[in-house]
Amino acid sequence: MAKPRTTPERLGAFSDGVFAVIITIMVLDLRPPSEATLAALLPLWPSALSYVVSYLFIAIIWVNHHHLLRFAEHATPRLIWVNFAHLFMVSLVPFSTAWVADTRLAAVPVFVYAAVFVLVNLAYCAFVWEALARAKVEDVSARMRRITRTRSFLTLGMFLIAMLLSLKFPLWGFGLVCCVLLVYLRPEAPGAHT
Amino acid sequence: MAKPRTTPERLGAFSDGVFAVIITIMVLDLRPPSEATLAALLPLWPSALSYVVSYLFIAIIWVNHHHLLRFAEHATPRLIWVNFAHLFMVSLVPFSTAWVADTRLAAVPVFVYAAVFVLVNLAYCAFVWEALARAKVEDVSARMRRITRTRSFLTLGMFLIAMLLSLKFPLWGFGLVCCVLLVYLRPEAPGAHT
Amino acid sequence: MAKPRTTPERLGAFSDGVFAVIITIMVLDLRPPSEATLAALLPLWPSALSYVVSYLFIAIIWVNHHHLLRFAEHATPRLIWVNFAHLFMVSLVPFSTAWVADTRLAAVPVFVYAAVFVLVNLAYCAFVWEALARAKVEDVSARMRRITRTRSFLTLGMFLIAMLLSLKFPLWGFGLVCCVLLVYLRPEAPGAHT
Amino acid sequence: MAKPRTTPERLGAFSDGVFAVIITIMVLDLRPPSEATLAALLPLWPSALSYVVSYLFIAIIWVNHHHLLRFAEHATPRLIWVNFAHLFMVSLVPFSTAWVADTRLAAVPVFVYAAVFVLVNLAYCAFVWEALARAKVEDVSARMRRITRTRSFLTLGMFLIAMLLSLKFPLWGFGLVCCVLLVYLRPEAPGAHT
Repeated sequence: MAKPRTTPERLGAFSDGVFAVIITIMVLDLRPPSEATLAALLPLWPSALSYVVSYLFIAIIWVNHHHLLRFAEHATPRLIWVNFAHLFMVSLVPFSTAWVADTRLAAVPVFVYAAVFVLVNLAYCAFVWEALARAKVEDVSARMRRITRTRSFLTLGMFLIAMLLSLKFPLWGFGLVCCVLLVYLRPEAPGAHT
Repeated sequence: MAKPRTTPERLGAFSDGVFAVIITIMVLDLRPPSEATLAALLPLWPSALSYVVSYLFIAIIWVNHHHLLRFAEHATPRLIWVNFAHLFMVSLVPFSTAWVADTRLAAVPVFVYAAVFVLVNLAYCAFVWEALARAKVEDVSARMRRITRTRSFLTLGMFLIAMLLSLKFPLWGFGLVCCVLLVYLRPEAPGAHT
Repeated sequence: MAKPRTTPERLGAFSDGVFAVIITIMVLDLRPPSEATLAALLPLWPSALSYVVSYLFIAIIWVNHHHLLRFAEHATPRLIWVNFAHLFMVSLVPFSTAWVADTRLAAVPVFVYAAVFVLVNLAYCAFVWEALARAKVEDVSARMRRITRTRSFLTLGMFLIAMLLSLKFPLWGFGLVCCVLLVYLRPEAPGAHT
Repeated sequence: MAKPRTTPERLGAFSDGVFAVIITIMVLDLRPPSEATLAALLPLWPSALSYVVSYLFIAIIWVNHHHLLRFAEHATPRLIWVNFAHLFMVSLVPFSTAWVADTRLAAVPVFVYAAVFVLVNLAYCAFVWEALARAKVEDVSARMRRITRTRSFLTLGMFLIAMLLSLKFPLWGFGLVCCVLLVYLRPEAPGAHT
């Protein structure tokens, strides 16, 4: 075949469309109250909080997704499917966040919440592996590859711990998930630049 | 007219937007349960399963759609309309999948489900025909054209059989639809590369 | 300012996003029935029909929108605002189509329906005017400009007649709207190519 | 790293996707009435009005967002995060507009409405700062920078005044918000071109 395969740019544009829908889905749950008082806004706090939190986390995921996709030279069939798996897991974030907020951080919802991030992270590990495997050596140093892969496996372990922790201490489990996510605020793994 | 027509890239970008909305529509049906137990998640299984299945199938359709669109040299009016027809049929997948899951694989919903894939495949046959008709000979060999077209007609026949089968044996009909879809996991028709 | 303004491509991409959401909004109204019989699908016909019709009409509008946007050299502020007005009117099509279907072609809903197309056409006239005004003479012949503009004004008149007609004879009014829309199936005005 | 960072174009395309979803969300609230009379449309006016107003205001924000993004040379991490904050605030506009319309301009909803625009404007100030800080001197004159920044701070003050005003005189507060927004109808700050 003479023509190039689906480019990473193409894959990124499609993923952006999916991210745009997912990140704004929860705002549909914010319905204006019937009374015109500030007190009437109070019962909305679970929806509002879960919108803020899942918006922030999906934004973090987007930043990392884009950072990584830049290194992919080709959109191989495997990369496309790993990307679909990744987007699927991300689409579960609004659901699990809403459940956590509705039940005010009960044990089982926080457990499911951490489990969703385990799945997101699993798909992300595969994404890291696939994207970096095809990257040119000049673009990504061996050191950076190692650090990026190590980080993705470390955070996977942390999410698993948060999952188990939340069955007994949901607040601590939730806090751990949040802390791990903040590690990804900067897409570059720390120390990746020599 | 000096300027080129709508390019296939343009058409692909619009289609991606529609795919992004369709693929995430069903996640809106996943509402967190009011109780904080794993048992409370159980009644969600029809919505959850139909989300997973229709997500997977729409992903398969997307992969094939993109694979094929790369061969189109121009976005002719006919290709644009065939594409609109294709997207319309795809937009019915979440509806029919939800019905199948809600009724736990009853005969009529599986019949309608197979019928939707007959329609998707019909539009896809027209899409294959139109996209390959305009492709350059160097890009697509005669052998590959023949195999791709044959595959699309064969699967159309299989979906029709699944439709009839499901009236008597809905489980077998559903299974046949799933098997046929897995044929499309790789967009290249088998043996298309000499 | 050294940098170019928002390009028409940029404006087209944003419009595509809006079109993608609008064209798939109505599929959300298609809810699977609780019973597993073909008869249970029957009460869905107003939603189904209005989805089909508004999908087709929005597809026609998209084809014309894209055809025209290719001639615009620059995305002037006026073109951007005319485009926003156009998209706004288009976003009312699913609403009015659903009302017509729900009330089975009653007089007032068909009147409102025709009125929405009067508004869509009004914004389209301004769009035609603005896009062609800035087009290069080589791209669009004087003859083609005249024919395209004439067509947009003629169809505006027809929609106005359909509006008045529908108050007495809603079926005829609705039929007239459909006929006028079919004029736009081919984005080039007839006879535009000498 | 050899490869460029996420380009401003990429960031703009993602933002467009989010804008497209936000701007069309409210049309979902427009449900056709069950009766086929013009009088039956009347109870829809709060939804209709809030759709029109938030559509217009989000269109104004889009025009300014795009105007500004063109000056950014690079999509720095800070610009990406400021952009996410901006989009988040914009996503609250449909909610607050709907509350204002539902309660027919009651004091508290207008207060919240003005507060949302204070937040949108705050994020916009940061966006202006970040986008212009990295712009080339040839693209944006010192005079234009000063005027653009001054305008964004002035309008922030006006929205704050509208917030306080609306607690006593909601109609005046609402009117002030609308007037301030009209200042942004043209993305270039007045007098920015010498």
